[in-house]
Amino acid sequence: MEGYRVLEIKQSIFENNDREADRLREELKQSKTFLLNLMSSPGSGKTTTLRATIAALKDEFRIGVMEADIDSDVDAAAIEKTGVKVIQLHTGGMCHLDAGMTRQGLEGLGVEDVDFAILENIGNLVCPAEFDTGAVKNAMILSVPEGDDKPLKYPLMFSICDVLLINKIDVLPYFAFDMAACEKYVHRLNPNMKIFPICARTGEGIEPWTDWLREQITEHNK
Amino acid sequence: MEGYRVLEIKQSIFENNDREADRLREELKQSKTFLLNLMSSPGSGKTTTLRATIAALKDEFRIGVMEADIDSDVDAAAIEKTGVKVIQLHTGGMCHLDAGMTRQGLEGLGVEDVDFAILENIGNLVCPAEFDTGAVKNAMILSVPEGDDKPLKYPLMFSICDVLLINKIDVLPYFAFDMAACEKYVHRLNPNMKIFPICARTGEGIEPWTDWLREQITEHNK
Repeated sequence: MEGYRVLEIKQSIFENNDREADRLREELKQSKTFLLNLMSSPGSGKTTTLRATIAALKDEFRIGVMEADIDSDVDAAAIEKTGVKVIQLHTGGMCHLDAGMTRQGLEGLGVEDVDFAILENIGNLVCPAEFDTGAVKNAMILSVPEGDDKPLKYPLMFSICDVLLINKIDVLPYFAFDMAACEKYVHRLNPNMKIFPICARTGEGIEPWTDWLREQITEHNK
Repeated sequence: MEGYRVLEIKQSIFENNDREADRLREELKQSKTFLLNLMSSPGSGKTTTLRATIAALKDEFRIGVMEADIDSDVDAAAIEKTGVKVIQLHTGGMCHLDAGMTRQGLEGLGVEDVDFAILENIGNLVCPAEFDTGAVKNAMILSVPEGDDKPLKYPLMFSICDVLLINKIDVLPYFAFDMAACEKYVHRLNPNMKIFPICARTGEGIEPWTDWLREQITEHNK
């Protein structure tokens, strides 16, 4: 039997998602739980990045992970092996999570013993960008094989995130990905966006990203 | 000035999308226009695949392309260079196209001189699967860097498509992608799904795919 619970998320009943998201953020501040919302396309490496991030920070923070998926639990099984607390959220076909749904997930996970909670959102560059989950920070992953033009095509996602991880830099030699052009597109949309090129599989570039995270978590939870 | 038109798509007014999709399919049968709906994640190579497909078939069929995007027109500019008729559809943030929206696109494109119309849908493995566009056939692309487990995570998309193109097979040596496992997951969901491994960039594997398409178009338009 797996050690993680599967929670079927219900549609939210709140009419004003932005207000609900602000309320959730306020509660997270009180409970000293830093919530990171991690978004990307399918297959860009969210789960591998999460595993590398957990490995770097699990001795310093009590980590809890919410794996949102339409109806599988491939990712929760992978995260469970890292030894941190994990819950699988099933959205039943819904393509994003809003603040009410995130709250259901946090209640299912239990945050009283969690300093750093991570929501692995549905693999989708469109819909999750439209709903504030109540997270303290929003991060996204773009992987090299997806191409450097994605900021032009999914501008809202690149505008609302605080951090961009450019993953799979180990395969840069095999793809026509122009890092400087990508950074230019990103900063035109979002001048303050932090960009970390990484290879989650090998661990390359993970340290600057986890250094940044450590600072954010410590500042939020003090 | 670009030679293609940009059409701002409006939300559909039809309550029953399935009925509207069936009606559109009936009209396409009458007008001898084969409509292919092409779906995938962002960055899996829809536009490159489309260019390779157009190159193979443009001497046999009069082709028209609808490029759906949230608000850019990177892809229409790329397709225009192939010399076929193209229109850019802007969905204004909407994450999918339904049959009413596809009809607006077809009217904008003009199908009286088109044998083979292609809708390049929004890059998203979730929402476009939920709406019948009225297309005669649905095709999807999964690219090797996205991983072989995607059928487990986005089952609806893999269930409703007639064809799966597995793209970027040139980078198979650099990724842990198990082709046999992927095919097994796919056929468990959708036993009749046609699978074509391709590399759109180099043209590898494009011929079996365009042979299949030629047969479908000829059968539909006769």
